[in-house]
Amino acid sequence: MSPQKPLILVVNDDGIQAKGIRSLLEVAKTFGDVYVVAPDSPQSGMGHAITINSFLRLDHQEFENGVEHEYACSGTPADCVKIAIHQLLPRRPDLVVSGINHGSNESCNVIYSGTMSAAVEAAIEGIPAVGFSLLDYSERADFSYSQEIAKQVITEILAKGMPKDICLNVNIPKGKKEDSKGIKICRQARGNWTESFDHRQDPAGKDYYWLTGKFENYETQDDVADSTALADGFVSIVPIQFDLTAHKAINELKTWNL
Amino acid sequence: MSPQKPLILVVNDDGIQAKGIRSLLEVAKTFGDVYVVAPDSPQSGMGHAITINSFLRLDHQEFENGVEHEYACSGTPADCVKIAIHQLLPRRPDLVVSGINHGSNESCNVIYSGTMSAAVEAAIEGIPAVGFSLLDYSERADFSYSQEIAKQVITEILAKGMPKDICLNVNIPKGKKEDSKGIKICRQARGNWTESFDHRQDPAGKDYYWLTGKFENYETQDDVADSTALADGFVSIVPIQFDLTAHKAINELKTWNL
Repeated sequence: MSPQKPLILVVNDDGIQAKGIRSLLEVAKTFGDVYVVAPDSPQSGMGHAITINSFLRLDHQEFENGVEHEYACSGTPADCVKIAIHQLLPRRPDLVVSGINHGSNESCNVIYSGTMSAAVEAAIEGIPAVGFSLLDYSERADFSYSQEIAKQVITEILAKGMPKDICLNVNIPKGKKEDSKGIKICRQARGNWTESFDHRQDPAGKDYYWLTGKFENYETQDDVADSTALADGFVSIVPIQFDLTAHKAINELKTWNL
Repeated sequence: MSPQKPLILVVNDDGIQAKGIRSLLEVAKTFGDVYVVAPDSPQSGMGHAITINSFLRLDHQEFENGVEHEYACSGTPADCVKIAIHQLLPRRPDLVVSGINHGSNESCNVIYSGTMSAAVEAAIEGIPAVGFSLLDYSERADFSYSQEIAKQVITEILAKGMPKDICLNVNIPKGKKEDSKGIKICRQARGNWTESFDHRQDPAGKDYYWLTGKFENYETQDDVADSTALADGFVSIVPIQFDLTAHKAINELKTWNL
């Protein structure tokens, strides 16, 4: 009897039809048996939202060059992981891969990212997981170098196993392999959006507001900060944890009069 | 000239009409000038979702015992903080208070929590912030002891200042002050939801699924884990950071063949 192939769940936040998830699926198929459970519509910016005041739908899908088990889910990326693990899959998956996102999830963007929330949800469940993002928002972005990176990272995860209680946030610069400086293990850069709201009035004269903004990397000096590594032409890999405790602040808080 | 009063933003995820935010507003008013910007409908489980594919509305509201500046926002809790800071408030707030949530945000629930996403969003902006949650999902929950705790915590934050790059996750057990053992500074407990989906068919015979589950605390031995402290009758306060890097895993990843 040949050993069982790895069972891999593929998910994303741009929706099951996005070029990014179709590109990731192509890679995942070469490693094992694959299920795709992905949102039926784009879910960018959904953070770690879950659906608790409504129900979920799962609709079987067929795609050219797809796999047998593909489902569009009416929920968020985190919902997709939950329903896949607890309802749909024949056994616990060996790996959850999320993406490839159309656009960066570097720095604090990891917190707003549906792509990474799927990976974090899997990590909470104790399943090795990784999210991939390409720094190109275009629907027609070229994912060929991202596919190579995904292949390399998945190979290592399956060979080495994932460190306990973490998942990986992989960001890939735009461009071809020849332009890349390689891979760098990084930490989350300090950075944020300089935001403003575009204030408009609808035809009835009622106010509404569009969020606009520009991302700023606050640390250009330290090349192991992911945003800096990306700007320097590297692929960045940040290990992400779901324990949000700021352990260093505990002793300071203990001096408070509480 | 008297010194300027603190400017305090009050937000939540249960919606501007919830008893929890009305209770928190009562407390906040005693400390300074208050703006309320809260969702126009319940947003529980929204995690750190933000609205990027649609616009936001802000509608001025008037409540009995309310304040002059109260606005219902069509977006998520994180949206409320963004639009308050970048569009609505006359200056940067001195403090953002979120809640009081109807229900626990202990352990990994912090990740799914709209209440805490508002506090984290403020922390990313460099503004002191705290989220309060009462372990009682009832709409008519008794918030009197939670109000006392909020008063104590806000007093300390305004007196001592918040440690850099963190916010506070405060959970309060159900019951009266007499039942409480006091406050404990904690870390996020290891815990998770044992989940399953309730599979049903609609009148047309089409499948749908409701998420159901029960929270399990994996560490009953360590009384500084927030879930354990709460079960023991303490109020738990966990300092929360938005740098998700698992620094301890970086060296292990550097040994990978990447």
